[in-house]
Amino acid sequence: MTSKSAEVIAIGTELLLGEITNTNAQFFAQELAALGIPHYFQTVVGDNVERIHQVLAQATQRSQLLLCTGGLGPTPDDLTTEAIARFFNTPLVEHPEIFAEIQAKYARRGLPTPENNRKQALLPQGAQVIPNPRGTAPGMIWSPRPGLTIMTFPGVPSELQAMWRETAVPYLWQHGWVTEVFLSRNLRFWGISEAALAEKVQEFFSLTNPTVAPYAGKGETRLRITARAADRETAMALIAPVEAQLRERTGADCYGADEETLALVVGRLLQGRGETLAVAESCTGGLLGAMVTEVPGSSAYFQGGVVAYANAVKERLLGVPSTVLAAQGAVSAPVAEAMATGVREQLGTTWGVSITGIAGPGGATATKPVGLVYIGLAGPAGQVYSWEHRFSPERGRDWIRQLSACQALDHLRRVLLNAV
Amino acid sequence: MTSKSAEVIAIGTELLLGEITNTNAQFFAQELAALGIPHYFQTVVGDNVERIHQVLAQATQRSQLLLCTGGLGPTPDDLTTEAIARFFNTPLVEHPEIFAEIQAKYARRGLPTPENNRKQALLPQGAQVIPNPRGTAPGMIWSPRPGLTIMTFPGVPSELQAMWRETAVPYLWQHGWVTEVFLSRNLRFWGISEAALAEKVQEFFSLTNPTVAPYAGKGETRLRITARAADRETAMALIAPVEAQLRERTGADCYGADEETLALVVGRLLQGRGETLAVAESCTGGLLGAMVTEVPGSSAYFQGGVVAYANAVKERLLGVPSTVLAAQGAVSAPVAEAMATGVREQLGTTWGVSITGIAGPGGATATKPVGLVYIGLAGPAGQVYSWEHRFSPERGRDWIRQLSACQALDHLRRVLLNAV
Repeated sequence: MTSKSAEVIAIGTELLLGEITNTNAQFFAQELAALGIPHYFQTVVGDNVERIHQVLAQATQRSQLLLCTGGLGPTPDDLTTEAIARFFNTPLVEHPEIFAEIQAKYARRGLPTPENNRKQALLPQGAQVIPNPRGTAPGMIWSPRPGLTIMTFPGVPSELQAMWRETAVPYLWQHGWVTEVFLSRNLRFWGISEAALAEKVQEFFSLTNPTVAPYAGKGETRLRITARAADRETAMALIAPVEAQLRERTGADCYGADEETLALVVGRLLQGRGETLAVAESCTGGLLGAMVTEVPGSSAYFQGGVVAYANAVKERLLGVPSTVLAAQGAVSAPVAEAMATGVREQLGTTWGVSITGIAGPGGATATKPVGLVYIGLAGPAGQVYSWEHRFSPERGRDWIRQLSACQALDHLRRVLLNAV
Repeated sequence: MTSKSAEVIAIGTELLLGEITNTNAQFFAQELAALGIPHYFQTVVGDNVERIHQVLAQATQRSQLLLCTGGLGPTPDDLTTEAIARFFNTPLVEHPEIFAEIQAKYARRGLPTPENNRKQALLPQGAQVIPNPRGTAPGMIWSPRPGLTIMTFPGVPSELQAMWRETAVPYLWQHGWVTEVFLSRNLRFWGISEAALAEKVQEFFSLTNPTVAPYAGKGETRLRITARAADRETAMALIAPVEAQLRERTGADCYGADEETLALVVGRLLQGRGETLAVAESCTGGLLGAMVTEVPGSSAYFQGGVVAYANAVKERLLGVPSTVLAAQGAVSAPVAEAMATGVREQLGTTWGVSITGIAGPGGATATKPVGLVYIGLAGPAGQVYSWEHRFSPERGRDWIRQLSACQALDHLRRVLLNAV
C-alpha cells in the first residue's frame, strides 16, 4: 500500500481563468486522507489535448491512481475522455446503455436529446462506467495497463461526490486500495481559547489510535478525534470512549460535535424543557433570529423578537426607559438587561435574550470602542443577567456581528445547563 | 508576449490533506487573466524537497514565470526558498534588513524574536525581496537564469494579495510582462432570467472591445463587460458607454454593479429620499433585517422590525387580526399586507416590508407547498402591496430564506424607483 499513491487532475479552462474555485481537489484530498491513500500532487490544466497529454505523461509515471475531474460534458470543449483514450492509443467504444439513460433523463423533462450528448456514451475500450445518478455525464474507471487506474468524474461537485461515494469508493475497497478507514469526529468548543483547551486535555495528544488534535475553527476551537480501523463501526467504537473522557474533562465548554451548531444545541435544550425564546437585537439587526431559525422546526420554541435598531424602537416596543438610554447610552449593560426583560414580557416567553453593541466601522465614542457589545438575558425566575464583550475592531463589522450572535447563544446555553 | 506563460505552484501538505481550499490559485488565475498573461498549469505539492524539485523540473521547462505560494514560514516544514535555491545550485544569502524588520515587528507586539525566524532572512544569491507589510514572511523575485522568473509568496491570502499588488504587479509592468490591462465590470440583475436578459441585449455579445457576456450569479443574473487597454483609465473609458447603453436597455432590472448589493442600493435610495424602513419577518426569522444592517451606516434609514415567527406575535406586536390569520392562514397575501402595515405603524417609518412563507422542510399543507412566500409592502401614501412567490422546494430551507429576503428588497427597490 505504501508504494501506491493517487493524484488529482482537474481539467477545465474556467479554473485557469479563476472563474471557479477548485473545491473538487479539496474534496478528493479529504476523502483520500480518510481512506489512507497517499496523495502527493494535484494539477490543473485547461481543455487542451496536448497539455492534458503533458500532464498524463508525468502523472502516469509517478502515481498509480489518477482522479480526473471536468471535461465530460457534451460540448466540443469537453475532451477529457477522448484525450485520455488517445494518450493510450485506445479506440473509443459506444455504450448504448449510457445513451439510452441520457435519452431517458431528457424525456423525463419533456425534452428531445441533443445529438451532442451522444459523445458522452463513448468510453475507451475496456473501461467501466461510473453511473451519474444526478446528471447526464457519466464517468469511468479504466486500467489502461496493469498497475494504473484512471477514474473520471464531471466537474459539478454534487455529481462528482455522489459518483465517488456510490461507485468509486466501493471499487477501491474491492481492489485493495483501501484496507482501513480513517474516521474523524470534531468536538466543538465556545468560550475557551485553543491554548487553554490544549492545556486542559494535553495528555490526550499523545494517544495514537484514536489521535486527538486541537485546531481553530471559525471563531471557535475544536478537538479532532481520528481513529483508524478496518471498518467504520470499529473506528466509531474507538472514538466513543475518548470522546466521553474529553467531554467530561472539558464540561460545558464543549457545546457539540461535527455539524451541531450553537443554535441547534440551544434549540434542543429549550425543546427538552418545553420552554420558549424571544430575542431583542440592536447591532446584529436580526442575525440572532436568523441563526435561531436556521434550524428546521425552530418554531417549536422560538416565538420571534424585536429588531430595535433605533432608540425609539427600544423605548416603544421593548419598554427600555428613556432615562436609562440617556444616562447610560444604548450600548450599556442596563439597556441590554432592559431589552431582554422587555422582549420576554412583550412576547410572553420563558427566556429573553438581547444584543446591543457597536459593530463599526462608525459609531464609536471616546469611551465606547468598535467591538464593544453587551448581551442581556432574562429568565422565568426573575433572573436578569448581562455580559460585556470587547471584540477586536480589526475583525470588522460582519465578524463582530457573527461573534455577538454566537456569544448570545452560548450565554443562553450555559444558563440553561445550570438552570434547574 | 504570446510565447511566454506563467504557472502557479502551491506548496503545502495542508492542501494535500484537504484542510484548506486553494483560493490562492484562483486569485492568481483571476489576476493573470486581468493582466493578459497566459497561464496553462497549476500544481499543488507537499512540503517535500524531492517532490518540489520534480515540479520545478517540469515547470521550468514549459513556463517562464513561476508563482509559488506557501512554505515561507519559520518552521522546519517551511522549505520552499531552500528547495528552490538548491534546485539551481545557488547558495542562500542572509539579508540583515529582513531580519531587522522581523525583529521590529515582534518588538512592536512586545515579544522577543524566536531564533527560528532567522531563516526567513535567507534568500538565494541575486534574489530581490518582496516586502510583506502584513506578516513576517517576505517573498522574493528571482531570475535564476535568463528567461525565467520565480516569485514566492506566503500562503496567507491577505499577505499574498498585498505583496502581489504592491511589488509583483509593478515588476511585471516594468519587465514587459504586461502591456495591456483587462478590466471587468459586472452589472447585476434581479428578477430576470439569464435567457430573457440575453435576448434583450443580444447584439452586445458580438462586441470585441469591450466584450459583453452573461452569466448566472447566486440567485441572480449578471452581465460582464470586459475591456482591454493600455491602462486602467482607458479601459474604464471603453466600458462606460457600453454600460450606459446596457443600463438604458435593461431599465430597472439592473440593480447595481460589482460589489453593490440589493441592500446597499435600497439603502442609498431611502437615504436619498430622507425616508425610513421597518421590516416584519416570519419565515426569514431576522434575515432581512440582518441583510439591511450589513450595510455600514444603515442606521440612517433603518429603524428596526419585528420577527413574528409565532402567530401570537403577529397579532400582538403587528396588529394582524386573528380573524384574518384564522381565515387565510399565516402564509397569505392579506397577512403579508397586515404585517407590513402593522410594522410601519408601530415603528413610525415611511415604509414597512414583510415576509411570510414556508421555508420547509416541514410546514407544508395540501394547498400551501414549501417555497410559497408572500411579500408585503406598505407606504406613506397609504399604498399596500403584496406579491406571491413560489420558490422551488428543492432549493432547500436556507436558499428559500435567502431568496425571500433578496426578493423583498427588490420589490421595495422597484417601488422606490417608481414612487414620486
